[in-house]
Amino acid sequence: MTDSAPTAPFTARQVLLKQRPHGYPDATTWSVVTTEIPAPGDGEFVVRVSHLSLDPAMRGWLNDFSSYIPPVEIGAVMRAGATGTVVASAHPSYAVGDTVSGAFGVTEYALSDGRGVTHIDLETCGAPTWLGALGMPGMTAYFGLKDVGTVQPGDTVLVSGAAGAVGSVVGQIAKAMGCTVIGIAGGPDKCVWLTEIGFDAVIDYKAEKVLSRIREVAPKGVDVFFDNVGGEILDAGLANLRRGARVVLCGAISSYNETSLPPGPRRYLSLLVYRATMAGFVVFDYEDRYPEAVEAISRWIGDGTVVARETVLHGGVDAFGETLLGLFSGVNTGKLVLALDEHAPSAG
Amino acid sequence: MTDSAPTAPFTARQVLLKQRPHGYPDATTWSVVTTEIPAPGDGEFVVRVSHLSLDPAMRGWLNDFSSYIPPVEIGAVMRAGATGTVVASAHPSYAVGDTVSGAFGVTEYALSDGRGVTHIDLETCGAPTWLGALGMPGMTAYFGLKDVGTVQPGDTVLVSGAAGAVGSVVGQIAKAMGCTVIGIAGGPDKCVWLTEIGFDAVIDYKAEKVLSRIREVAPKGVDVFFDNVGGEILDAGLANLRRGARVVLCGAISSYNETSLPPGPRRYLSLLVYRATMAGFVVFDYEDRYPEAVEAISRWIGDGTVVARETVLHGGVDAFGETLLGLFSGVNTGKLVLALDEHAPSAG
Repeated sequence: MTDSAPTAPFTARQVLLKQRPHGYPDATTWSVVTTEIPAPGDGEFVVRVSHLSLDPAMRGWLNDFSSYIPPVEIGAVMRAGATGTVVASAHPSYAVGDTVSGAFGVTEYALSDGRGVTHIDLETCGAPTWLGALGMPGMTAYFGLKDVGTVQPGDTVLVSGAAGAVGSVVGQIAKAMGCTVIGIAGGPDKCVWLTEIGFDAVIDYKAEKVLSRIREVAPKGVDVFFDNVGGEILDAGLANLRRGARVVLCGAISSYNETSLPPGPRRYLSLLVYRATMAGFVVFDYEDRYPEAVEAISRWIGDGTVVARETVLHGGVDAFGETLLGLFSGVNTGKLVLALDEHAPSAG
Repeated sequence: MTDSAPTAPFTARQVLLKQRPHGYPDATTWSVVTTEIPAPGDGEFVVRVSHLSLDPAMRGWLNDFSSYIPPVEIGAVMRAGATGTVVASAHPSYAVGDTVSGAFGVTEYALSDGRGVTHIDLETCGAPTWLGALGMPGMTAYFGLKDVGTVQPGDTVLVSGAAGAVGSVVGQIAKAMGCTVIGIAGGPDKCVWLTEIGFDAVIDYKAEKVLSRIREVAPKGVDVFFDNVGGEILDAGLANLRRGARVVLCGAISSYNETSLPPGPRRYLSLLVYRATMAGFVVFDYEDRYPEAVEAISRWIGDGTVVARETVLHGGVDAFGETLLGLFSGVNTGKLVLALDEHAPSAG
């Protein structure tokens, strides 16, 4: 915020869903429009968005069927988690200058009534971390591992997508809890980093046979398998369970852009052989307990137990589509964030 | 037992595993031999086998890899649950004339030390029922539904292989517990019978589109899906879960004779959308609690709550191979049993 704070109406560039993609989203998926965000009505405020969250789950929101959340409608602003600063307010809990996080969408300015919005303290952590380890990915890691995976000290924990926003936090929380942690990631840079932040073993799925490598590093099998990837990597994990194992289904980034439903996990009967459980979850169900996770992860970041890492790209909202594709090609280590630096405050 | 009770040694025809099948077992899989079972040593007894249990799981025991139980070795007597009568004993707990159940194998006579053998009361139920609703299938139904599926009164329960030994008991226990029960079975005869014994809805997978029919009869989805079948039927159930559903993996009869690992459940991410759990189990883990299940199911049979049904075929042990195939073509309604009627007592 500066002395020349913008005033309503706010001219905002926004990314709308133009048509549903078949396979990977491309330029035909999106349209960029300029619109005016009016002054906030009673109980509302306007946020100038500073950072956009890029999430694999976004691909699912583009499909024309309801999943755990309704699809983004054609012509609607693309749904996205974001951080920003309140620039105008008629809401008692949000003052101009407050820094906040919420599902503001891919837009330069957003009007909000405060639902799903939380205050964030940028002195504790930068905005990208509030979208990563202290945001939805961190919440997902924490509740998926502790509540769904019922992880116990001494467990052997396998994480796929280990260098991603969720996986990297899963592995570090598991280490903090006294587990042996094996990560699966793509490429030497990610694998080296995972070793640096304390993973006991790392498997490069682009260079190694995942199934047999898991067997080598975890000959007794894994107690918790936190899967972000699906496909052959899910099968490789299922082949290496320990009796009573818990498979936590967080996502399946390998399949989100498939044009037809890919084959499921051939080895699902491993669940029977190993008396194991495979459970899905949706982080939103834990919303009441986010403060617990934020407190724990903040503390771990503070004492160095958890390293929060983000890959921050810079550009305008029109860079959103291309940036999203980067998730699926694996450009990011840690959380992928688009910083809207070029977005100068503009008065209406 | 007659006055002319056989005495040791006992000449027994037996079915051995000759070579491991590729796909369906056939005549080359088995050899029938005649051997002499000696008089029992101290702590042993000899059983004359009256009824053999035919189980889908038998197909898995023929594969050359350890699953939840080691494979049957080449040249060994085929493993099978069976009932029979003690004809010679040097064991303090088993007397000549006692009727028993145990894993005696595909043989006319078996030597036993009593491990895994239980006394059965043929006045309560006939031997086929002790291999069915009061045997392993009944135990599987009881613990799978109650402990793994954590079924609750009012739940909507979906059962595949519903007219089989396990499925028919699952559905009836669920009814007894106040659930709405939907069965999936093959052919009109089985479906009619399931309706007669109280299933609320029955789907004939040979004549109907399973996925859409489940949706019709359970528009709110199913709370517990007890799957004996796998393949497309598993997927059809996964597409119709209710939030918090439990999928109980009991088996996958559709895939046991496949020569390569078939595709897994494409719709496994339904577990995520519906915050559902898919869990495997092995009934042997509940051995300590079998008496609880036998007591409950006996009571239900006694008061008519559960109808125990068996398909009893008659023949010698050499009919075993062909009888086993009948399981996979669905000849049986309820438990499939081979009664060794032609097996006249023969002294060595």
